[in-house]
Amino acid sequence: MDVVTFGETMVLFNPDSNGPLRYAHRFTKSIGGAESNVAIALTRLGHEVGWFSRVGNDEFGKYIKSVIRGEGVDVSRVVEDEERNTGLIFKERFMHTDPNIYYYRKNSATSFLNVDDLDYDYIKQSKILHITGITLALSKLAREAVYKAIEIAKKEKVLISFDPNMRFKLWSKEEAKPILLDIAKKVDIILPGISEAEMLLGINNPKEISNRFLDMGCNTVAIKLGKEGCYVSDKNSGEFCDGYVIDKFEDTVGAGDGFAAGFLSGILKGLSLKESAQMANAVGAMATLVRGDMEGFPTTSQVMEFMGKEKYVDR
Amino acid sequence: MDVVTFGETMVLFNPDSNGPLRYAHRFTKSIGGAESNVAIALTRLGHEVGWFSRVGNDEFGKYIKSVIRGEGVDVSRVVEDEERNTGLIFKERFMHTDPNIYYYRKNSATSFLNVDDLDYDYIKQSKILHITGITLALSKLAREAVYKAIEIAKKEKVLISFDPNMRFKLWSKEEAKPILLDIAKKVDIILPGISEAEMLLGINNPKEISNRFLDMGCNTVAIKLGKEGCYVSDKNSGEFCDGYVIDKFEDTVGAGDGFAAGFLSGILKGLSLKESAQMANAVGAMATLVRGDMEGFPTTSQVMEFMGKEKYVDR
Amino acid sequence: MDVVTFGETMVLFNPDSNGPLRYAHRFTKSIGGAESNVAIALTRLGHEVGWFSRVGNDEFGKYIKSVIRGEGVDVSRVVEDEERNTGLIFKERFMHTDPNIYYYRKNSATSFLNVDDLDYDYIKQSKILHITGITLALSKLAREAVYKAIEIAKKEKVLISFDPNMRFKLWSKEEAKPILLDIAKKVDIILPGISEAEMLLGINNPKEISNRFLDMGCNTVAIKLGKEGCYVSDKNSGEFCDGYVIDKFEDTVGAGDGFAAGFLSGILKGLSLKESAQMANAVGAMATLVRGDMEGFPTTSQVMEFMGKEKYVDR
Amino acid sequence: MDVVTFGETMVLFNPDSNGPLRYAHRFTKSIGGAESNVAIALTRLGHEVGWFSRVGNDEFGKYIKSVIRGEGVDVSRVVEDEERNTGLIFKERFMHTDPNIYYYRKNSATSFLNVDDLDYDYIKQSKILHITGITLALSKLAREAVYKAIEIAKKEKVLISFDPNMRFKLWSKEEAKPILLDIAKKVDIILPGISEAEMLLGINNPKEISNRFLDMGCNTVAIKLGKEGCYVSDKNSGEFCDGYVIDKFEDTVGAGDGFAAGFLSGILKGLSLKESAQMANAVGAMATLVRGDMEGFPTTSQVMEFMGKEKYVDR
Amino acid sequence: MDVVTFGETMVLFNPDSNGPLRYAHRFTKSIGGAESNVAIALTRLGHEVGWFSRVGNDEFGKYIKSVIRGEGVDVSRVVEDEERNTGLIFKERFMHTDPNIYYYRKNSATSFLNVDDLDYDYIKQSKILHITGITLALSKLAREAVYKAIEIAKKEKVLISFDPNMRFKLWSKEEAKPILLDIAKKVDIILPGISEAEMLLGINNPKEISNRFLDMGCNTVAIKLGKEGCYVSDKNSGEFCDGYVIDKFEDTVGAGDGFAAGFLSGILKGLSLKESAQMANAVGAMATLVRGDMEGFPTTSQVMEFMGKEKYVDR
Amino acid sequence: MDVVTFGETMVLFNPDSNGPLRYAHRFTKSIGGAESNVAIALTRLGHEVGWFSRVGNDEFGKYIKSVIRGEGVDVSRVVEDEERNTGLIFKERFMHTDPNIYYYRKNSATSFLNVDDLDYDYIKQSKILHITGITLALSKLAREAVYKAIEIAKKEKVLISFDPNMRFKLWSKEEAKPILLDIAKKVDIILPGISEAEMLLGINNPKEISNRFLDMGCNTVAIKLGKEGCYVSDKNSGEFCDGYVIDKFEDTVGAGDGFAAGFLSGILKGLSLKESAQMANAVGAMATLVRGDMEGFPTTSQVMEFMGKEKYVDR
Repeated sequence: MDVVTFGETMVLFNPDSNGPLRYAHRFTKSIGGAESNVAIALTRLGHEVGWFSRVGNDEFGKYIKSVIRGEGVDVSRVVEDEERNTGLIFKERFMHTDPNIYYYRKNSATSFLNVDDLDYDYIKQSKILHITGITLALSKLAREAVYKAIEIAKKEKVLISFDPNMRFKLWSKEEAKPILLDIAKKVDIILPGISEAEMLLGINNPKEISNRFLDMGCNTVAIKLGKEGCYVSDKNSGEFCDGYVIDKFEDTVGAGDGFAAGFLSGILKGLSLKESAQMANAVGAMATLVRGDMEGFPTTSQVMEFMGKEKYVDR
Repeated sequence: MDVVTFGETMVLFNPDSNGPLRYAHRFTKSIGGAESNVAIALTRLGHEVGWFSRVGNDEFGKYIKSVIRGEGVDVSRVVEDEERNTGLIFKERFMHTDPNIYYYRKNSATSFLNVDDLDYDYIKQSKILHITGITLALSKLAREAVYKAIEIAKKEKVLISFDPNMRFKLWSKEEAKPILLDIAKKVDIILPGISEAEMLLGINNPKEISNRFLDMGCNTVAIKLGKEGCYVSDKNSGEFCDGYVIDKFEDTVGAGDGFAAGFLSGILKGLSLKESAQMANAVGAMATLVRGDMEGFPTTSQVMEFMGKEKYVDR
Repeated sequence: MDVVTFGETMVLFNPDSNGPLRYAHRFTKSIGGAESNVAIALTRLGHEVGWFSRVGNDEFGKYIKSVIRGEGVDVSRVVEDEERNTGLIFKERFMHTDPNIYYYRKNSATSFLNVDDLDYDYIKQSKILHITGITLALSKLAREAVYKAIEIAKKEKVLISFDPNMRFKLWSKEEAKPILLDIAKKVDIILPGISEAEMLLGINNPKEISNRFLDMGCNTVAIKLGKEGCYVSDKNSGEFCDGYVIDKFEDTVGAGDGFAAGFLSGILKGLSLKESAQMANAVGAMATLVRGDMEGFPTTSQVMEFMGKEKYVDR
Repeated sequence: MDVVTFGETMVLFNPDSNGPLRYAHRFTKSIGGAESNVAIALTRLGHEVGWFSRVGNDEFGKYIKSVIRGEGVDVSRVVEDEERNTGLIFKERFMHTDPNIYYYRKNSATSFLNVDDLDYDYIKQSKILHITGITLALSKLAREAVYKAIEIAKKEKVLISFDPNMRFKLWSKEEAKPILLDIAKKVDIILPGISEAEMLLGINNPKEISNRFLDMGCNTVAIKLGKEGCYVSDKNSGEFCDGYVIDKFEDTVGAGDGFAAGFLSGILKGLSLKESAQMANAVGAMATLVRGDMEGFPTTSQVMEFMGKEKYVDR
Repeated sequence: MDVVTFGETMVLFNPDSNGPLRYAHRFTKSIGGAESNVAIALTRLGHEVGWFSRVGNDEFGKYIKSVIRGEGVDVSRVVEDEERNTGLIFKERFMHTDPNIYYYRKNSATSFLNVDDLDYDYIKQSKILHITGITLALSKLAREAVYKAIEIAKKEKVLISFDPNMRFKLWSKEEAKPILLDIAKKVDIILPGISEAEMLLGINNPKEISNRFLDMGCNTVAIKLGKEGCYVSDKNSGEFCDGYVIDKFEDTVGAGDGFAAGFLSGILKGLSLKESAQMANAVGAMATLVRGDMEGFPTTSQVMEFMGKEKYVDR
Repeated sequence: MDVVTFGETMVLFNPDSNGPLRYAHRFTKSIGGAESNVAIALTRLGHEVGWFSRVGNDEFGKYIKSVIRGEGVDVSRVVEDEERNTGLIFKERFMHTDPNIYYYRKNSATSFLNVDDLDYDYIKQSKILHITGITLALSKLAREAVYKAIEIAKKEKVLISFDPNMRFKLWSKEEAKPILLDIAKKVDIILPGISEAEMLLGINNPKEISNRFLDMGCNTVAIKLGKEGCYVSDKNSGEFCDGYVIDKFEDTVGAGDGFAAGFLSGILKGLSLKESAQMANAVGAMATLVRGDMEGFPTTSQVMEFMGKEKYVDR
């Protein structure tokens, strides 16, 4: 298996019309989850990926499993919780501003994800373990599981990739900062957004941020700069990599997860840091071209065609 | 105000198609709640009714308020909870069996309904206070609020009506039985289903059940017998009252709440026990003729026409 | 009660797709009416508002009542007409041009609204009576009711607010002009659009228009200038107040009604002319951000946040 | 042309859900009209048919024309009214009882159908003119047009077929009876339902009813007896013809129009009275197998297969 | 009859949502076909038009016939194939790029259209025969039918109009080029797009292209230049005619067919070359304003209003 | 792997309304295929199953793969055809009669399934190879693949299960009979319907049919008798096994596939012939309780509960 990842995926209800949710009559069901997005995106790029979680032993948990499995991701380690519900998200969309999110995830099955849910050998046999800050924020139990997974990976020399994915609805800056920084010290690859990095380090210069993370022990740093692309670095080098210009996009959700998947795919394929960054930018950009979190993730040939067609310039 | 009632009303999501929920794509939003059903049914029968609750200060809470207010019920005492979500229900329908229900109501706003949410004068100025066993099952806080409301009503000589409304998804027989019996001793009118009465008293003969409740201190007992109608009694008399024969019905949800509303309406209008029972049977039957919990509740003139048109026979 | 208003609200059918209506298969039901929009917008801003009308004693009339009541507006004085239908509107939308409107309101219940439908005490106890030119155009009976309502308000020292709301589908310029001008002489607050003012007075300079209306006897004039904002004046002062710049809007319907509600809210709260104008601009702008006539009307805290966030500059 | 007919066809809005219309959110557009149903059913049976009317010069009128023309009916004589709207119908469906109908047809374009809208030669060149009592009920103008059309047909020796089609929402028994009887005296073929015949003649025995109509001057009488089939007679003979037993039907709307079309088709094809009656019964029965007024009308080969497959017995 | 045309019209399925078709749940049925578009557009402009084809004797074939007949086009010569299916198209839409098309038309009924399906007199009595390159690409049989139709038209002095309509999904440049050029030599009016002309002739200057087609024997050439409008010429003259500027359009499908219809309408009405070109530009532009292939085609009065309202400038 | 099966699965389009398809506006996409149904049903009963096919390398093919994989079936051997489309089915539903089926599967990708698409080791490592008569009917190539698969299975001592699944739309009795009989001689388990058996053997007595198949070389015969249940036999015994009585069912599609899956599951679990037959009856019955081909297939615990709850009696 190339990559193993885990975290909370919820059933997502999208209203058929924009505006305050009280006026929405009908909702369409899909799924939403950062780690499963990364898993699906990597699978579509040709990698073997395993995702696990703790879901409710209910129709919504089975739905999540069947969608992710349908995309070709291994879900054999997903645990079904007999007592708790699968978490839910409701979106409220507006034309002029970002959507509001209503969570029903407190005490969800995944917030009871714990060290006993980890399969040592499953992590051991993977090349990369990908974790996010969302799981750290879910509950004390889930956080312990992340720490344990990192411990296993380090022991077994599995690369660890980390996306801080700060969620202010789940925890405050004060709660999050020390934990995210502590995790940053233990991982090989870190993929923060520029504002997340600023929150963690108090500085906003990509090069300085990079150096700080490298000093903490990270081997590879990729800082997401939104439309500007990213700044990537390792011990030897560091450089900006321009993003793709997208005139019309459907939905920015999934762009960060696509970035992570593109970057890890580059690493798995042995591409250079710069090439991995371009792949990351491209997969992230393509995710915005299709409505839905994961519908827009490309195959390798699609992303190659996209990168060839679109013009981009190195600084 | 004729009647005041309170309890949990949730946003109800109905799938567009029958079968396991994992295969349902779209859901339609409405509301569901026993006490608000009774309030709406009584309003449509011409009474002034107040319903209150604790809902989330969110779009779903506002939706619930606007629907119930739109039906003409006073919602001026509804409290909005800043911290907890409004509860949700998902239905899973099958053609050959009863629907499954998935609740997202644990730690909902209404489970934090408490004695401070009661408006003494609001209860005092009503003729009947209607309570149900569902609120007793929600949480310790909510149960205390029911006891306090009963205390107020008794002090101010407000009639108390009680529907045990046993919900096995919320509490077990062992938890429920002593509390429901304790409440039964404090109320004026009790409206149990025959199987609820059997659970509480261990007997299944309507007349004996009646006597037991009258002995406990109830003044009026109306035992719901499903298609058979009901058995009603007070200190002086007791009799069976046949139900209405419905060939094709859409949905039995709301029938019990319609029964309660019809019965209380009869009492408020000074009808005899027998006439109140017929009204209860009729409103309960009419609720089944229309899909949805409350869409089928009749106006007084509609129920009169229904009672005249349909044939029914006293035993 | 802070404001009382009355007029025609119809059931509005929106096609699911753009283009000629003959090709539209499905329609969604909602409501449309200028005066009920103002009533709902004022209620959401925290005022007590009554709206009345004559609707058909049919399902569509009951629907209108329940929606408006659900929003918290008092509908206790709505009259149900036993003989006439509730009016209807069908919209035909195009991407490149304004929607076409098809009315089924000739001889509707509201066109039989008459002086007997007025509750003297209901108007008397309000602070502001809000009327529009649409009701004047409905029928001779409805027009007489407007005149009578003005008479009551004047006698009882209730402020009168007037939005000319010219509708060329209901009457011609020749019919409308003398009546609108006659009404303008009787009201305290007039809220015309710039093109309506030009039609009535033959001039298009906001200051001159203001002076003319002040000379007729109005105390306050607020002239809507579209994206430019408005010009407001009273006996002592007059000034332009810039509008809010909205990049993407869903629907301009309801903007004028939001303007009226924002302005009256400012007056009721004792704000200055300038502050009331800003409130009017803001509520009008926010109405365009959400599809639907009334879904976008803000609460006071929402409009305050909006006004703080958006940049605007006085001339 | 084999048959010419005329009358009002309206746009029909069907709610997506059963129950009171105030709770219906979405409606689907189709058309409804007795005479156009007959025209479409006859066309599908292989005849050349012309239908005309006065519709609004609006999208709904154009829609009606295109649907009927799409079915192969000649609509070249349809008049577009520049001033009045096309009529509308809303259905309210219940599971346990017949649907309610809400009309928006008062002062509709078709109620201004008049003698000037008749094309003398168009009627003259047809073999049968088919009229219904609905057009007689629409307005004085429309009634005059019916009388005029009958006059033309009689003069030009065109057979006249008449379906009384009593609509209590359009006129009372008192208004209708003398006019329907007067028309009955002028036509060749009369196709009343048994209850219509009873209303007109005060008797309910099919044979007696037949004799009375034959005495008035009709040549052919076909009395619809619902599930029992029909009783057909002419000067020489009279007999019962059993109906087809339908276990599950979708919708009885269109059955009477199918009966008329089947009967006229039999006559046009030179079938015997009995064979025409069987054809009438079969087409009427088949109309109930498909939801919608006209979707279920069969082709000749379909009706033949249906008649062969189903068992029926002569009395 | 003014124009006769023939070709393949298919049932078109449009997904309800953008993005990869595997994620689309629901599809809406309509029709698509270049020649029927031209026929419908010409009918709406007031001409008498006949369209024929070979469709499956199935529900989809009957649907196509009823839609086109409903628009007023004569479909009396359409042949129903007992053995083959009616062809289908599925669209896959993206926000940022052109839709993908999935055909199910191989061995469709229309690909068996053949010389025996031609009605000599039907073609003979028309003023213009309009053919397209799509029919030439369908099959050898269909191509022979086109050649035969041209032969009939030439013999009977019916004008022949030709739109090359190159479809790369149906045949390659190598297959198409010699045949399209051969046809070009036989027709009176040719309406190529600029890139089609370039593919055929290897040159891209409109004037030169025109001259080449005139040299081949065409009498009239109208070269479509997209937003730039067109270049029209005959033996005597040639000029550019600017297109209409459309800010927001729904859908460019049908623009080319609208252009053809507008141009042929101008010729039928005896307009000058320049006026015909303006009409062609206008009808083509209007087709893009409404979603759907044919819903946007204007009536003559609508196109006149459009031409008057919109500013355009001759070079 | 417990079972390997292969065959054609198509994208299935269901109209939103009953009646002739020409009047259906919207269609919902799902999948349909007998062998994939068996694979999914077996997976839900806890077995490891592989299904393969040749699908188009298009969105519809990818959709089919993701749905079947999502249900937990191994699809690693599915071949994607670069040149042919994935097959389609359209259903036309009626209330009173069976649905009509419109296929677009001629020359579909699966009809080019061939011996090269077989993975020898994949078949070898399975316990049961399940084949159906549908694949035999698709094309000569597909038939050869079935023969080859049987050859592999026999050589490697894999049990062969065969459902004749006669499809008259694909081949005639004359074509089918010799081939189906030839296959029957090569398989271990045969699962014919009673009418299929009658077609093949010319007799209709279950015991005689059984004996004939046993004489041909089958080891186990299970004859489906519809509501009557089934007759099962092997060399040693034979008996009737009553079916489950279902009052209300949604859809009989999938019942036969459920029967096959239940029977094979019994065999894989080492149940007796009688017990396997009961399991087969139960799974088949449960498939009819939910709309859709596969949505109703039960888990083992669900089928056990169903068998316990329902009363059934051995003859």
